[in-house]
Amino acid sequence: MLNSVTDAFEETLRGLLPEAAFKEDSTPYLTEPRGRWAGQGLVVAPGSTEEVAAVVKACAAARIGIVPYSGGTGLVGGQLLQDGAAPVVLSLERMTRIRDVYPTENVLVCDAGVIVADGLMSAEDEWRLFLLSLASEGSARIGGLLATNAGGVNVLRYGNARAQCLGLEVVRPDGTIWHGLTRLRKDNTGYDLRNLMIGAEGTLGIITGAALKLAPRPAHIGAAMMAVPSPDAALELLGLAGQTIGEGVSAFEIMHRQGFDFLDETGLDVKKPFNEVPDWCVLIDVGLPAGLKPEEALEGLFEAAFDSGLATDGVIAQNNAQRDAFWHIRESIPEANRRIGSVSSHDISVPLSAIPAFIARGQQALAQVGTFRINCFGHLGDGNLHYNVFPMPGRSRADYEVERPQVKKVVHDLVHEMDGSVSAEHGIGRLKVGDLETYSDPAKLAMLRAIKDGVDPLGIMNPGAVLRQV
Amino acid sequence: MLNSVTDAFEETLRGLLPEAAFKEDSTPYLTEPRGRWAGQGLVVAPGSTEEVAAVVKACAAARIGIVPYSGGTGLVGGQLLQDGAAPVVLSLERMTRIRDVYPTENVLVCDAGVIVADGLMSAEDEWRLFLLSLASEGSARIGGLLATNAGGVNVLRYGNARAQCLGLEVVRPDGTIWHGLTRLRKDNTGYDLRNLMIGAEGTLGIITGAALKLAPRPAHIGAAMMAVPSPDAALELLGLAGQTIGEGVSAFEIMHRQGFDFLDETGLDVKKPFNEVPDWCVLIDVGLPAGLKPEEALEGLFEAAFDSGLATDGVIAQNNAQRDAFWHIRESIPEANRRIGSVSSHDISVPLSAIPAFIARGQQALAQVGTFRINCFGHLGDGNLHYNVFPMPGRSRADYEVERPQVKKVVHDLVHEMDGSVSAEHGIGRLKVGDLETYSDPAKLAMLRAIKDGVDPLGIMNPGAVLRQV
Repeated sequence: MLNSVTDAFEETLRGLLPEAAFKEDSTPYLTEPRGRWAGQGLVVAPGSTEEVAAVVKACAAARIGIVPYSGGTGLVGGQLLQDGAAPVVLSLERMTRIRDVYPTENVLVCDAGVIVADGLMSAEDEWRLFLLSLASEGSARIGGLLATNAGGVNVLRYGNARAQCLGLEVVRPDGTIWHGLTRLRKDNTGYDLRNLMIGAEGTLGIITGAALKLAPRPAHIGAAMMAVPSPDAALELLGLAGQTIGEGVSAFEIMHRQGFDFLDETGLDVKKPFNEVPDWCVLIDVGLPAGLKPEEALEGLFEAAFDSGLATDGVIAQNNAQRDAFWHIRESIPEANRRIGSVSSHDISVPLSAIPAFIARGQQALAQVGTFRINCFGHLGDGNLHYNVFPMPGRSRADYEVERPQVKKVVHDLVHEMDGSVSAEHGIGRLKVGDLETYSDPAKLAMLRAIKDGVDPLGIMNPGAVLRQV
Repeated sequence: MLNSVTDAFEETLRGLLPEAAFKEDSTPYLTEPRGRWAGQGLVVAPGSTEEVAAVVKACAAARIGIVPYSGGTGLVGGQLLQDGAAPVVLSLERMTRIRDVYPTENVLVCDAGVIVADGLMSAEDEWRLFLLSLASEGSARIGGLLATNAGGVNVLRYGNARAQCLGLEVVRPDGTIWHGLTRLRKDNTGYDLRNLMIGAEGTLGIITGAALKLAPRPAHIGAAMMAVPSPDAALELLGLAGQTIGEGVSAFEIMHRQGFDFLDETGLDVKKPFNEVPDWCVLIDVGLPAGLKPEEALEGLFEAAFDSGLATDGVIAQNNAQRDAFWHIRESIPEANRRIGSVSSHDISVPLSAIPAFIARGQQALAQVGTFRINCFGHLGDGNLHYNVFPMPGRSRADYEVERPQVKKVVHDLVHEMDGSVSAEHGIGRLKVGDLETYSDPAKLAMLRAIKDGVDPLGIMNPGAVLRQV
């Protein structure tokens, strides 16, 4: 059993940390991004790895839980402990140093509290590209991105956070520091602790620093939107793009016409690329080496796709402004969704070849529960769909309290039956602990528990996230 | 404490497995590839995951150790237990099914006993490329490649084994099966068990099946050899290749003239690309999409390199036979090394920018120990050098018994001081357990131990590999 943080314990921490580590107002740290629930605890913001270690040691001695807090943008409650013993909420906001940039190695080493967009600016020059780029980059911090193994818009090409990290510095649950901030490309000495910490959502230790990969910036970038007759055709088009453009395909996003209708309905003003909005379309983004023109590559792809019936219409960006306009559509859809207000939203993945069947069967299964509007869109190239279910026109989210759990169960059961994941990129946090228990192989659950108990025997690290408190 | 396998226990296993699972001659399984030492134990070869699970359950009940045996090509003794209680040696050789190929997804699912070269043949067609390709591919098996996180010739472009695996099936130390054979590209539900098992060298469970990634085959391949004035210039040339050819660079290997001299000395007949062998040269391999010609890209790279003094001579392959001839040189060097017989050989990595300083300081430090010939070559693009130290002409390996441990210590101390790894791709096995203890951060060692004890509480899985038996 853990203890609640007390006034006396706060005094202990005030003896260890400078005044700047304490907050006048804790509210922002204890509020879910969509305002859906509230956390609790004492917020502290250590300014260095050593200060983090001191806080963790004190918490371990007092058996007080620690909830690491990065940018606060997570959607599954990993950064908020609602009930039970009040924890220390440990914010990384004062640890924002870019420690080093190694141009020869294409490596950036930084504190875990660096805001992603700041990291981008430090890292980008005429030919280097910081790989972690995502919608929340103005507020998300590197530590949280790594703790949740975040994705972003270039996962198809560059992989998720895990693929972009070479080394970590971590404060362990007993307050000792693991100096694992290596810049090595190859190191086979012992188990893969780096990847174990990445995606552990702060339940095995606190990431305080990271060595991140940069990539050579593609010489030319470009994009196209193509109308496709079906999800099947979209999948075939993805394969065709792989064959003709190869590793140059940076993103391959699918959108249903429901998203365009929502843009109209919510008054979001975006320029439509097609005269008539198709049922399904894809946004293809490419980055090519010198000597290859994106317009020509995409033109060639479109012609081949049109000839074989995989695309019925297409627009190829002729400049960066047009490419930005295509991405503006894609990135406005989540805002339209928020304005409509979903009955239930799902961040799922299935094996690539199962996507068309999933979309068809999902629609059929939901029809058994009620009448909804489905906005299905997302990272087709990664097999990752944002499969969101909405009220019919004139009704609202609040009208569907009865259906909501049924909708979620129908979607997640189908994902599970099709060998998919009920959390492709958002993680487990506290919201999906039950899903993890329901849908995981028992052997997997047993291993997760064995690792948690071995690495954090007191159970103080982000208690109740990923695994239920015992 | 573990028990030795007994006649009675063999009878137990004979009740669980068919006759074909038992061997008349165990010798090949108990011999190190270079004949340096011998293992012990009872060899069994289960034919299915369920049979593996039955063996593990029986061993757990009897507290008998299990040494997983894949292709037997490892160089650090992970597949051989020399002393202590005699184990069951569990060979994967009868598990050789390609379970499925998913062309739409570019995924191959197979048993862990599939020989790498067979996997290659099943997977390759006109446009797909099996990514795991290495010198021992005719005998190495997929399970061993994954258990040791093997590298291969295309790590620079495609990453090591870890980067090429989507899912695993694993028999746990209690004999239960983890059905983790997912083909998902994104799945953030719980800790990264896949990467934990990959590279664990059989100490946390036995990999019985894997889902592996394929990649689109590049439209054009090509290669060049370039003479460089120094390791510094080689490193700058690597950067230049990244800028001009981008992700198309598949391999970037460095060779010292010592390797060419050894080819002559040992009578290995290879065609030299240069009239006069330079002190240092690099082999650059590229794979490019349609529309780009490798010869032109490499010609452009060479011209830029020559103009800026990074290359003094160069030969560009004009066809596949010439490219093969370049690779034949590179791949003959290890055989020449074997024929000379090293005093001590080292599989090390350092941060990329530290490579020139490492080479210079290594030479200086070894001069304090004695007079040697150094053949330094390897995967410059990965920061991974095979840094091998040889007798002077007319002397042999046996003449250096006194110097051998000193040489090893000097090299490994220097690697450690320069933030490198003393095992970049070969793993720890049993040979490097002491190195892991000497050079690892204590916090890292504590985490390795906590994970081992949590996942394999009886300590039966490959006892003494990676971590000392307690």
